[in-house]
Amino acid sequence: MYSQPALLIDKEKLINNISRMFQKANQSNVIFRPHFKTHQSAEIGKIFREKGIDKITVSSVSMAEYFANHGWKDITIAFPVNLREVIKIDDLAINISLNLLVDSSFSTEQLAGSLTNKVGVFIEIDNGYHRSGLLPEQITEIEKIVKITGQSELLDFKGFLMHAGNTYNAKGKSEILSIMDDAALKLNVLKAKFIGRFPKIITSYGDTPSCSMADGLGVFDEIRPGNFVYYDVMQYHIGSCTLDDIAVAVACPVVSVYPGRNELIIYGGAVHLSKEFIAADNDFKLFGYVVELTKSGWSEPIPGAYVSSISQEHGIVKMPKEKLDTFKPGDVIGVLPIHSCLTADLMRGKQIIFD
Amino acid sequence: MYSQPALLIDKEKLINNISRMFQKANQSNVIFRPHFKTHQSAEIGKIFREKGIDKITVSSVSMAEYFANHGWKDITIAFPVNLREVIKIDDLAINISLNLLVDSSFSTEQLAGSLTNKVGVFIEIDNGYHRSGLLPEQITEIEKIVKITGQSELLDFKGFLMHAGNTYNAKGKSEILSIMDDAALKLNVLKAKFIGRFPKIITSYGDTPSCSMADGLGVFDEIRPGNFVYYDVMQYHIGSCTLDDIAVAVACPVVSVYPGRNELIIYGGAVHLSKEFIAADNDFKLFGYVVELTKSGWSEPIPGAYVSSISQEHGIVKMPKEKLDTFKPGDVIGVLPIHSCLTADLMRGKQIIFD
Repeated sequence: MYSQPALLIDKEKLINNISRMFQKANQSNVIFRPHFKTHQSAEIGKIFREKGIDKITVSSVSMAEYFANHGWKDITIAFPVNLREVIKIDDLAINISLNLLVDSSFSTEQLAGSLTNKVGVFIEIDNGYHRSGLLPEQITEIEKIVKITGQSELLDFKGFLMHAGNTYNAKGKSEILSIMDDAALKLNVLKAKFIGRFPKIITSYGDTPSCSMADGLGVFDEIRPGNFVYYDVMQYHIGSCTLDDIAVAVACPVVSVYPGRNELIIYGGAVHLSKEFIAADNDFKLFGYVVELTKSGWSEPIPGAYVSSISQEHGIVKMPKEKLDTFKPGDVIGVLPIHSCLTADLMRGKQIIFD
Repeated sequence: MYSQPALLIDKEKLINNISRMFQKANQSNVIFRPHFKTHQSAEIGKIFREKGIDKITVSSVSMAEYFANHGWKDITIAFPVNLREVIKIDDLAINISLNLLVDSSFSTEQLAGSLTNKVGVFIEIDNGYHRSGLLPEQITEIEKIVKITGQSELLDFKGFLMHAGNTYNAKGKSEILSIMDDAALKLNVLKAKFIGRFPKIITSYGDTPSCSMADGLGVFDEIRPGNFVYYDVMQYHIGSCTLDDIAVAVACPVVSVYPGRNELIIYGGAVHLSKEFIAADNDFKLFGYVVELTKSGWSEPIPGAYVSSISQEHGIVKMPKEKLDTFKPGDVIGVLPIHSCLTADLMRGKQIIFD
């Protein structure tokens, strides 16, 4: 067992994470459309379905195809529409309720001119994070998009969607909640402007830090967090979860132990964990916390132990001497990943679910 | 075409890169055992074979299995032996000449006790990079390992192997060459110490920066560079190659264009390019250079354009306004990756070779 790096998933923690967020969405009376880009797994999807979730978010046409093939019938692709995949999009729209994202009249026009099946269209709004989306004040362009959807029988204007990615760099709960409040204001001003003409439009918002920290989410109509299903060390540092909520660990064989250096080498590198790290002063870099594997999961992080460096297949683990002396080549340790979305993407097909 | 990110490989550049290194190895009279972890591709492997190369390096047992299944008969796994994969290693050793790496008497003893087929064994030496390997001065442990191989009929002591990973952080050619000279000295002192008892042992050294920059490599018996097959922006920054030597680009669909921001968004993110970046002052981060695709390859980098940020599927490209105005959603651009090994790993199965 564990002859190679494997993604261990603690089903109990996973179910707790899903239940907690689902319950919060229900109490807030918002639609819960979890983002499946984090796990990209039909098997994990099934656990969501058993909880009663039937609407999902993905970040690529390929992911939409994958989950449509696994029985999901209501999917939003939360990524600016890729015009080079219009044929696949059109095919998908035959069988499922498919929502797309646009942030330009150009793309919207191209879509309108090339689809033969009906899709929902969200306009992506940039809250100031400046990844994708139109700024709320780009109202002329927004009006143009809305007009194109109004003229098309195939584009159903669904409302305004936002990803507040800047919560990932925020310092603490109050800053995160103020980003969320600002997002809600921006989305609701836009919604108010168009609801008269389009009574069914909604606001859709998503990111794990704000959805985890806010007490209520009723300021939106829909939420789309994704990472919360697994959480990770970055979310722990942001304050979205406890260490105990992290539902994934990568099992890594120990291949070398260096008592003189207080370090050991694991078979577990950038192609397993990803190169994501948390930086601090004095060139300190954290690539993951280290845990011991148990029969049913894993321990709390080993105090003072962490992954300090990774290359393609190697990970260097720093560990206090007394603990290091208990390990030898051939043992296995676990690594709590910095960014579970990227780790899970790299470890697709190598996951083991612990009941 | 290019509806999704694809790894474009310029075969002419690739062949030039292979030929140049092969020629240098021949002129230096050293064994050329290129590292195949960079491309991990049987198809690229075939191009090496056509050039006359028959010995290779890999970094995992899985990779060794893959290339053995594609006809490679002489493989070194340049990674501290993973004792949890001894059964697979033993199976591999039935059909091919297999070399392993050890850096402890513990692992060597375990190996000796569990194999049933003959393997070659290199002792990995740490030049001060402090990833894996024994320091040259840990001579008692080295002697212990050598003794175990001498007592085993299945472990054939092959010599001393080193990866000077610190050349990646060196500043300029003279620092890199002095790391190489120091490595050669350390390896040759060890070789001299044991050659009387083991007349066939060799020194094996590998890293793309030193092998690219040194005029001659005759201070070693074998070289194992890998990255040189593709090179990348990091190697260009180190000084190992010209921009024109970079043999891979990732084709990425343009999904949004923001004239007000002088930015565009590509479908091409961390799951395609990896999160590797080059950092400079003032929080500047470089995730790749941007090129235009042509019929037979790609252009020089667009002046002033670069990938400034990436998330899971999105890449943000900064570009001067005049150039930006020539792009619209649905176009495709190319990205020269920062670290081609990680990019190629992520893009396995999505490669297109340009003749």
